[in-house]
Amino acid sequence: MRFATGSVDTPVFMPVGTQGTVKTVRWPDLLQMGYNLILANTYHLYLRPGVEVIEQAGGLRSFTGWPGAILTDSGGFQLFSLSGLRRSSPEGYQFRSHIDGSLHTLTPEQVIELQIRFGSDIMMVLDECLEQPSDRERTSRSVDLTLDWAQRSRDAYSAVGWNRGRLFGIVQGGTFPDMREASARELVRMGFDGYAIGGVSVGEERRETEIAVESCVDILPAGSPRYLMGVGKPEDLVDFVGRGIDMFDCVVPTRNARGAAFFVPGGVLNMRNARFRNDHRPVQESCSCFACRNHTRAYLRHLFLAREWLAPILATLHNLQYFSDLMTRIREAIVAGSYDSWREQWHDARRDFDASAH
Amino acid sequence: MRFATGSVDTPVFMPVGTQGTVKTVRWPDLLQMGYNLILANTYHLYLRPGVEVIEQAGGLRSFTGWPGAILTDSGGFQLFSLSGLRRSSPEGYQFRSHIDGSLHTLTPEQVIELQIRFGSDIMMVLDECLEQPSDRERTSRSVDLTLDWAQRSRDAYSAVGWNRGRLFGIVQGGTFPDMREASARELVRMGFDGYAIGGVSVGEERRETEIAVESCVDILPAGSPRYLMGVGKPEDLVDFVGRGIDMFDCVVPTRNARGAAFFVPGGVLNMRNARFRNDHRPVQESCSCFACRNHTRAYLRHLFLAREWLAPILATLHNLQYFSDLMTRIREAIVAGSYDSWREQWHDARRDFDASAH
Repeated sequence: MRFATGSVDTPVFMPVGTQGTVKTVRWPDLLQMGYNLILANTYHLYLRPGVEVIEQAGGLRSFTGWPGAILTDSGGFQLFSLSGLRRSSPEGYQFRSHIDGSLHTLTPEQVIELQIRFGSDIMMVLDECLEQPSDRERTSRSVDLTLDWAQRSRDAYSAVGWNRGRLFGIVQGGTFPDMREASARELVRMGFDGYAIGGVSVGEERRETEIAVESCVDILPAGSPRYLMGVGKPEDLVDFVGRGIDMFDCVVPTRNARGAAFFVPGGVLNMRNARFRNDHRPVQESCSCFACRNHTRAYLRHLFLAREWLAPILATLHNLQYFSDLMTRIREAIVAGSYDSWREQWHDARRDFDASAH
Repeated sequence: MRFATGSVDTPVFMPVGTQGTVKTVRWPDLLQMGYNLILANTYHLYLRPGVEVIEQAGGLRSFTGWPGAILTDSGGFQLFSLSGLRRSSPEGYQFRSHIDGSLHTLTPEQVIELQIRFGSDIMMVLDECLEQPSDRERTSRSVDLTLDWAQRSRDAYSAVGWNRGRLFGIVQGGTFPDMREASARELVRMGFDGYAIGGVSVGEERRETEIAVESCVDILPAGSPRYLMGVGKPEDLVDFVGRGIDMFDCVVPTRNARGAAFFVPGGVLNMRNARFRNDHRPVQESCSCFACRNHTRAYLRHLFLAREWLAPILATLHNLQYFSDLMTRIREAIVAGSYDSWREQWHDARRDFDASAH
């Protein structure tokens, strides 16, 4: 994908910077690791610091100092998961702020306007995220509402004549393949710059995520980016690329880092483990991250046990480097035409992984 | 001062890295800001990760990855302020760990041995830190004990024939100038590589710190470094250099950073303040730190209000840069022979400081 800020190779993993910062990380770290596209959240940034502040700063990139591209999620998922007393109506969402309890309304049109004022490179339409499980009838009503909002978003976006960003539609339909299929067809008919699969990564079984993808991914035009929202454990990245997904985001590398979990080829090492007490090797010999170049497992363990600030900082750098390297491997395998065999080898290594041997 | 790792200009401010890390900071940041000497703590590192781990790593520099010099405090102050159920006897300290309540004993000889095994560049003798206020009699007994420990430390240090580090004695004597004077004379008679003034920065009035310094500083040989322990607000650095102090350490730049306090010429800005909401200037135009080069007050305020990890990281970088720059100014003024007038100007600017105009 090409942006005003440069181009981004796909398939791509986007670090999560909900509130305009990727937790513990400084922007040059991300650039150095090869990241040029991050995710931020319209719901969060609308509530704090507010669109006026961001607009007066000259947009989200100028406000945050991030020189790369930004995708802003619409906030549909966050309205679903964070805000108290939310209510969707044909008009839009009414909700209470999770910060101060204040009452707000957001319509699909307003969500587009916010993202345009943010200067987002990729904007997402407002969607309704549904509790799971939900029955056919409830899901059907929700899909209809989300499609209606998608059309209104599309219209609002066109009316502004904004020509810098891209607008993505979001496929919903819960656990019902036929509804996901219909939702995708309808979105393609409306025409978006890219298509996301939403309502996944809400605690469902892996098989259900696969069904959600398989039921609609082939309907979405191959020439447009296809984005699987909120999904991104390493095995998800490796597998869903093979099913046609181009874009991922997930808090796993950053959140798990704060819990002392270090991703390494084949598995995960918990750096609090007693066996690292006197282990003076880097976490991963082959890793080029700041932590692996400068620090040992014994020191990282000490930092975690001492609850020192530097511990999550170093762990986050390592995990983001791991995810960046993994995406590079995937892209290389695709280019080399060896993705299928590469993927099998990757899963073999994962099956054989013995954390105690590392 | 010259160390195996390079030379350090005095007067010098040492960032506090109690547990082998300066909170939120990576080592290259410190080097870039001109810091080559930091402080760590024998009490903390003895309890966690333990001396065996550090020794097996090849010493404290190799364990932490810090390429500069390290001064380790003996832990006398931390035994005083942190550990429960501590008891000093002629032999040494008996205490319970603040981490797990386990019972430990540390003698002056053991504290020297620990610091040698750490490979510290500057070692401190074990001293008894006294509750304030304490009466003459209690203080007198404490000074005698601390001097006895100093001699034993000196002997233990000589016996090892260690030739890489330096050993500093610590002047005690509470609020009694005559005892501080006697303590200093006795330490000089024993002969140390440097001399610290301890038992200050324990909540006393500024005037009492001045008395503690004035009562003994001229007795301490001008050719040896004189270190005022735990002291280091900007006005302290500016003033006590004039009274002959060469070395300082203090948690103020790092701890206050975590509370959103940014040091700027003349005063302090609290970045949570509402008036920074739409302030798209750097914290300090003339500052070369990472935060001032890359981010605005509005963004920093947002990060603090959102309780984001990056907030204390950026604030710490700024404050440590401010302290480094301040020490550079002080050294330049001394070299130029204009320290007295420079100091007056500095205090004028501080008196005239109006935070609301910044």
